[in-house]
Amino acid sequence: MNTPTSSHRARQTPASPIRKLQAAADAARGRGVRVNQLNIGQPDLPTPPEFLAIVRQFAEPVVAYAPSAGLPETISAWQRYFRRVGTDFSTDQIIVTTGGSEAIIFALLAVTDPGDEVLVFEPLYPNYVTFAQMAGITLRPIRLTLETGFRLPPAKVIAQQISRRTRAIIVCNPANPTGAVLSDDEQRALAEIARVHGLFIIADETYREIVFRGQPPRSFASIAEIQDRVILVDSVSKRFNCCGARIGCIASTNQAVIDAALKFAQGRLSSPTIEQMAVVPLLADSVRFTDSLVETYARRNGSLTAALKLIPSIRFAEPAGALYVMLSLPVDSSERFCQWLVESFHLDGETVALAPGPGFYVTSNLGHHEARIAYVLGEPALDRSAKILAAALEQYPGTTR
Amino acid sequence: MNTPTSSHRARQTPASPIRKLQAAADAARGRGVRVNQLNIGQPDLPTPPEFLAIVRQFAEPVVAYAPSAGLPETISAWQRYFRRVGTDFSTDQIIVTTGGSEAIIFALLAVTDPGDEVLVFEPLYPNYVTFAQMAGITLRPIRLTLETGFRLPPAKVIAQQISRRTRAIIVCNPANPTGAVLSDDEQRALAEIARVHGLFIIADETYREIVFRGQPPRSFASIAEIQDRVILVDSVSKRFNCCGARIGCIASTNQAVIDAALKFAQGRLSSPTIEQMAVVPLLADSVRFTDSLVETYARRNGSLTAALKLIPSIRFAEPAGALYVMLSLPVDSSERFCQWLVESFHLDGETVALAPGPGFYVTSNLGHHEARIAYVLGEPALDRSAKILAAALEQYPGTTR
Repeated sequence: MNTPTSSHRARQTPASPIRKLQAAADAARGRGVRVNQLNIGQPDLPTPPEFLAIVRQFAEPVVAYAPSAGLPETISAWQRYFRRVGTDFSTDQIIVTTGGSEAIIFALLAVTDPGDEVLVFEPLYPNYVTFAQMAGITLRPIRLTLETGFRLPPAKVIAQQISRRTRAIIVCNPANPTGAVLSDDEQRALAEIARVHGLFIIADETYREIVFRGQPPRSFASIAEIQDRVILVDSVSKRFNCCGARIGCIASTNQAVIDAALKFAQGRLSSPTIEQMAVVPLLADSVRFTDSLVETYARRNGSLTAALKLIPSIRFAEPAGALYVMLSLPVDSSERFCQWLVESFHLDGETVALAPGPGFYVTSNLGHHEARIAYVLGEPALDRSAKILAAALEQYPGTTR
Repeated sequence: MNTPTSSHRARQTPASPIRKLQAAADAARGRGVRVNQLNIGQPDLPTPPEFLAIVRQFAEPVVAYAPSAGLPETISAWQRYFRRVGTDFSTDQIIVTTGGSEAIIFALLAVTDPGDEVLVFEPLYPNYVTFAQMAGITLRPIRLTLETGFRLPPAKVIAQQISRRTRAIIVCNPANPTGAVLSDDEQRALAEIARVHGLFIIADETYREIVFRGQPPRSFASIAEIQDRVILVDSVSKRFNCCGARIGCIASTNQAVIDAALKFAQGRLSSPTIEQMAVVPLLADSVRFTDSLVETYARRNGSLTAALKLIPSIRFAEPAGALYVMLSLPVDSSERFCQWLVESFHLDGETVALAPGPGFYVTSNLGHHEARIAYVLGEPALDRSAKILAAALEQYPGTTR
């Protein structure tokens, strides 16, 4: 018989919009063009020496499986970290995962069956779409706009998207890709929707500390009224700049959710042992590492937004946190523009790679005039990148105003 | 509203039958009883120093994301390894995964949609059941029996389990938990079924080299007639005794499958960077490491089976490979017996933990008179464990003959 075909879910899964430009960027480098890669989320910052020291001093004769729920010392370190940011979990309410990615997958599988629906706010972290396809579920998007600073719409607008198949709301706070941080009122409004409609909240709080004005937001897990239905997903990747370690966690006071996550964790046996050991001192003394990290991103944010404000045709909502800003660009198609930038443009031998907007939307036909910048390079490179953008918009054949 | 409930798939996922006895084993140790843990797959062997040297010499200032498909040098190392065992893949037909577990999940998601079916042979590796629940699919079991040495039934018996929803056959060769190795005729018969019925073969060849008699079996990926429909899943864990490294791979010449796996891989960003670097010398020079490993397991197999043969009431099929043997025990319930062994029995202050049989079956009510031993300890401990088993069967209140 003919070669069998791949699954529908495989075919419907989008290729990463963030990594799409890589071949073109590599080709540009081959031509001697310097490419400022602001499209991907790999910062240029060092990994704390405390992490590297544990790796280099690894003295065990065997790299053995860790327990499926995580090494006891890593679970305890997460527990102490959460306590410091105002959230209390017992050690059996925390499961160490292979990156925040696995935590989100476990959360989705714990609360949804194929055909179920989950609410998301768009623009969204594109990999939520991949995880939903893997789980066989549908994302119902609620659109946020640059014009309102990506504020949440009124509760009744959100509630209109809830059907009898809706099981959860995913919320990334501070948000990738918008840099928006929910107000306390917005958090309370979401909590109330979850309470009234019997939904879980999957709270992706990876960028918790990275806030440029005022205090970091409270964790959804600290809102008493919804303690039974919050699933916290987290990661050390950006907070401690060790993206390649692949250590995250899922935490919940909902016993059924943790039971489910533990069974999924047993299925994949364990997360990497060496990195679980190496993140312990970072989680145990997090403030020491995050204070300077947040300062760095705040400086980059200030410098980049100041430079972007000098380009009248670019609009954006000033980010309050995370390490991203979503730009509105006067172009026919952000995908064509981003490709052209890397393939056909340079300013004094230098160009910039941005992540095109459509990949950040579930709704088709949105994002064609937007692109995301990640502040993964220092101020001089960000400053030059803004100048490159301004010059490029002058020359790009598809600039619309 | 009331607390929302977890998903059906979460509730239907079994807890790991292998890790279930852990609390009882820890309690026994607390009472001063020595527990020979033959229930879990963590061998007592050292990790090769070449792996540890790379970890200890990690000199990068940043633990950065690896490419989603894997580090180029790790992909190349897998390619050279596969070439050595008789299988040719191009580098873009191989994706590095986080353990063999993730490779199996990617393979299932690449070829099945919710509600689809996959054929398995039982007794089976229990985590296949977890992965199927996560994917929302149904496993259709074909029973193999100890009496026939776990040989495959005739092709028409296998074909009877195929419906219009069947998408693939998972086959573990050499097999966990039976230690059976497929004959060339059996491999050809399975290939023919896959060809005629338009099915994928997901070939889990993790134990490839660990064969005690004759040559290791050929890879399913080397059978020309089904090159378009074989998905190879593999892992470094047992072959190089680095279970906690969490490095595996998925390889296929089917472009649609690899495209799908790459998109899933992009969703979870990357596998751990440090371990990807550390496995390169092991894959590059695999024979040097596996030759002595195979000798060790062959010695253990010989010693254990010789000791078991002295217990007339225990039956088993002599394993030809892997590191497991499935025992038929004269007991009312293997779950009760295994629990009793750890909780209520010792011989001179020593007992043994086995993995009870039911967890290795999809069909309910099978495996109640079976248990699996993993050869994860040396010959003296295996020998004592056989003696402990013999004495326990004399004393256990539920012994049936």
